[in-house]
Amino acid sequence: MPTTLVPPPDLSHLTTLPPAELSRLAATTQTADLADAIARLRPAEAARVLTALPFDAMVRTFDEPELWPARADVVTHIEPTLAATLITAMSGDEGADLFRELPARERDRYLAALPEQKRATLRLLLQYPEDSAGGIMTPAFVSVPSNWSPEQVLAYIRQVGHEKETIYDVYVLDPEDHQLVAVLGLNRLLLADPHCSVLDIAGPRPPLTVSPHATRLDVARLVSKYNLLAAPVVDEGGHVLGIVTVDDVIDALVSEQTRQVQRLGGSEAFDEPYMQITFWEMIRKRAGWLSALFIGEMLTATAMGHFEAEIAKAVVLSLFIPLVISSGGNSGSQATSLIIRALALRQVRLIDWWRIVMRELPTGIALGTILGILGVARILIWQHLGWYNYGPHATLVAFAVGAALIGVVTFGSLAGSMLPFVIKRLGFDPASASAPFVATLVDVTGLVIYFTVALVILRGTLL
Amino acid sequence: MPTTLVPPPDLSHLTTLPPAELSRLAATTQTADLADAIARLRPAEAARVLTALPFDAMVRTFDEPELWPARADVVTHIEPTLAATLITAMSGDEGADLFRELPARERDRYLAALPEQKRATLRLLLQYPEDSAGGIMTPAFVSVPSNWSPEQVLAYIRQVGHEKETIYDVYVLDPEDHQLVAVLGLNRLLLADPHCSVLDIAGPRPPLTVSPHATRLDVARLVSKYNLLAAPVVDEGGHVLGIVTVDDVIDALVSEQTRQVQRLGGSEAFDEPYMQITFWEMIRKRAGWLSALFIGEMLTATAMGHFEAEIAKAVVLSLFIPLVISSGGNSGSQATSLIIRALALRQVRLIDWWRIVMRELPTGIALGTILGILGVARILIWQHLGWYNYGPHATLVAFAVGAALIGVVTFGSLAGSMLPFVIKRLGFDPASASAPFVATLVDVTGLVIYFTVALVILRGTLL
Repeated sequence: MPTTLVPPPDLSHLTTLPPAELSRLAATTQTADLADAIARLRPAEAARVLTALPFDAMVRTFDEPELWPARADVVTHIEPTLAATLITAMSGDEGADLFRELPARERDRYLAALPEQKRATLRLLLQYPEDSAGGIMTPAFVSVPSNWSPEQVLAYIRQVGHEKETIYDVYVLDPEDHQLVAVLGLNRLLLADPHCSVLDIAGPRPPLTVSPHATRLDVARLVSKYNLLAAPVVDEGGHVLGIVTVDDVIDALVSEQTRQVQRLGGSEAFDEPYMQITFWEMIRKRAGWLSALFIGEMLTATAMGHFEAEIAKAVVLSLFIPLVISSGGNSGSQATSLIIRALALRQVRLIDWWRIVMRELPTGIALGTILGILGVARILIWQHLGWYNYGPHATLVAFAVGAALIGVVTFGSLAGSMLPFVIKRLGFDPASASAPFVATLVDVTGLVIYFTVALVILRGTLL
Repeated sequence: MPTTLVPPPDLSHLTTLPPAELSRLAATTQTADLADAIARLRPAEAARVLTALPFDAMVRTFDEPELWPARADVVTHIEPTLAATLITAMSGDEGADLFRELPARERDRYLAALPEQKRATLRLLLQYPEDSAGGIMTPAFVSVPSNWSPEQVLAYIRQVGHEKETIYDVYVLDPEDHQLVAVLGLNRLLLADPHCSVLDIAGPRPPLTVSPHATRLDVARLVSKYNLLAAPVVDEGGHVLGIVTVDDVIDALVSEQTRQVQRLGGSEAFDEPYMQITFWEMIRKRAGWLSALFIGEMLTATAMGHFEAEIAKAVVLSLFIPLVISSGGNSGSQATSLIIRALALRQVRLIDWWRIVMRELPTGIALGTILGILGVARILIWQHLGWYNYGPHATLVAFAVGAALIGVVTFGSLAGSMLPFVIKRLGFDPASASAPFVATLVDVTGLVIYFTVALVILRGTLL
């Protein structure tokens, strides 16, 4: 009976199994589950289990993203000749990833042990950053000259297909200069007249391509918008360097989402699963932003210092400080998160900033008015029911809080919505804007707005 | 020369083109770009342009996610018989989506105009929620009996392939009871001995399936972990109801990321692109959470009320209120975002809550100590350099602030990390926890911690 999701099998007894049992397990278990279980072992044990697998299964397991965090440690526990054979058999993009994680000295040693062609592939991939299209592409794609027929292409696929990362997209090249002229899905090849020319079924649309310098998020955007199974990575001369397949795109999306949430929450992004983050790594990545925010927030103490005399005269004002300034932070955090996603999805662009201001300004005023009414009501009700005594000028205090809320929430919405634009304009990723960052920004201004409004409304009575 | 990303073509002149030009455009433009341009038109104009396209292009364009927000409005402007033909030609999952958006009265009218088989398909999909596997699956998959040979399967695919959503996964059924026994990639079919049995190449691994009630995120998790191109949706009897293809999974991941970021920022999730959200929708979805947070934050006024006498005696304490309580909110927001993702990625489970406490407790103490040292230094330096006079007991005030910071940040880390667990335990999505929510929760407690610590340290001097 199918369950909602396959429960991960219990593979905790992995280290006690004899090689024959491991072979059986490798044939009947999903590779991702096996990789997951091996990644939980100590590196030396993981290496022992891995190398006891049939070679094919070993390569497949080693290629799985589940094993990534452990991979560089594991490979150093594998006998060097076998390790070189393993790396040679890995797919190009995974191999490049592994080399990026190895210490420089180890890297050169392994590189020297590889066959020339593999070494050239790895050198090509390693010259691009790991989160670029060039860094995650694989050169194992099917390309054919444009004067072939579907029948010829299918025969060729039958011959070389097992070495390729995917055969579902076939890259049609100009027979002379080898430039990419079309991308053909295997489905169209299979359903077409076997004796026509592949160019006939390609259609007039130019192929969708990315440059090797495109970020993996750009690739994800292309693949997602145009429903591709792979994106060809093409150099300036129009030659295909490799392809990025949809499973890499999904991995990129999932890890990007994790980074995004962590950064919006106000810490640096973590690469490891939560339980595998070491204590010092945790402190380092969280303390950085936390301290920066703290130092920014110190300005609130400075701002408050300017109003110490007013607070001493009207202590009642201090009671509403957290209420007023947090509302600015909250509305700012809403606006920032909306704009971060709108920018990421290319729904708005930098030049749209003025249109955003013209939306957030009335929105902020309306939201501020709603909170202002709630705030005034809270103070007047408590005062009239005798739940708290806000002094002889309670009504004026209530209206000062209400008016300040309109100002603070409006400012929060504007500042929150503009922050991602400012960050992007400065050349950084707008997704670096975090909710705590906005709150800190708005807290200082919120205090100034609150006390200025209070001074205007309460001068001659309380102040 | 390839650019990093294809610039979207300028299609603003769409409404002025004669039908022949539109046909040419449909053949040479990416369907997603065409859909994008049409979605920006007024519904009546969009309907006119759509129906002027060749029928195939019309169906493809109407199926594109880019057109979704406008689709229900556009279809009501299409002549009813043509609309019924269009809906019949749409893929099953897209059709179901469209019907979900139509007003109930319209829905029945269109449903009545459809051929019986299409109606049955739509009824099947519509009985599942729109974000479940059953709600986004398509019944257009290739299934074959397990006693066929690869050659027979390929011949069958050539015959029916053009009606199917994908032919890259073939579902192998038991010839007797039609239960799913294996899933075969087209690549393996193509590369196998054409005369063996498909069961021989399927291998012993049981097929990966989802129940129709699985969420689309569960499907995304399955597809992403096992690198699938489609996930079969299987009923309790083991029969395939439909498949969810990888492009739907990517759409689900992208829209889930948007919802996640918006909710973490403290508003309800929006379905429309930012610029298309109406003013009232914007107010409604933001005011709800903002008011709820405001009402929660009112407790800070109550808490502060209890300490009004202390503030009157030692106004200097009020200067550090925003600094101290915001630090708790910030550390809480970090912890919440980390745990939300760890739960979403199944890196931690509900039963792990105690292990999280044992990690966040020392982390919080360490982070609080770092901020405490910064806070003490800030006050003492300002005091000694004469930049501000915190009174005769400045050193004690500094240590009260420092000690409070340790307590507040530790509490923030604990509360922030436990909040997603509490929400999940109550049966809600842990991703509903937002940074402003955590900050609000921590603000009240932060005030109590701050003043309690101050009372202990300053009693007999300032208080």
